Amino acid sequence: MKARVHVMLKNGVLDPQGKAIGHALGSLGFKGVGEVRQGKIIELEIDAANREAAEELVEQMCQRLLANTVIENFTIDIEE
Amino acid sequence: MKARVHVMLKNGVLDPQGKAIGHALGSLGFKGVGEVRQGKIIELEIDAANREAAEELVEQMCQRLLANTVIENFTIDIEE
Repeated sequence: MKARVHVMLKNGVLDPQGKAIGHALGSLGFKGVGEVRQGKIIELEIDAANREAAEELVEQMCQRLLANTVIENFTIDIEE
Repeated sequence: MKARVHVMLKNGVLDPQGKAIGHALGSLGFKGVGEVRQGKIIELEIDAANREAAEELVEQMCQRLLANTVIENFTIDIEE
C-alpha cells in the first residue's frame, strides 16, 4: 500500500523558505505572485492489512517523526 | 487563484533523505516500511485571468525555478 503524507507549516508560522521562493520568482520577472509557502511530501510503501490500519500506522509515524505538530499540520492519503 | 506544485525526484534518482526517513522509522520500531521518498510541495497565490493562464504561468515557474527537471518531476494543481 502506498501512503502519501503532506506536511505544511501551520498558518501564522513564518515560512522563510516560501518567502525566498516568492522573492526569487519576482526577480525572474514573474508578476502577480502572492503568498508562497513550502512544505514536504513523504511517500511511503507500507505493509498493512487494510486502509484503516495503514492510516493509523502512518498517523503514528507523523506524530512521532514525520511532522513537528507544534508548528506543522499533516494530511495523509492512502492508495491501495 | 491557488496553485499547488508537487516536486518529486524521478524514479531511479537516489533519494538519501527518503532513505534516512526509512531508517529512522525502522529505529523507532515501525515494521513493514518499504521504499520512502521525499519531495516538496510549493503553494502559491497567483493572479491569473483563468485556469489555463495559471497553469501556463506555474509551468514556466517550475521550468525556471521550482524544479530541477534533470532529476525531478513536477505536477501542478490549480484551485480557483
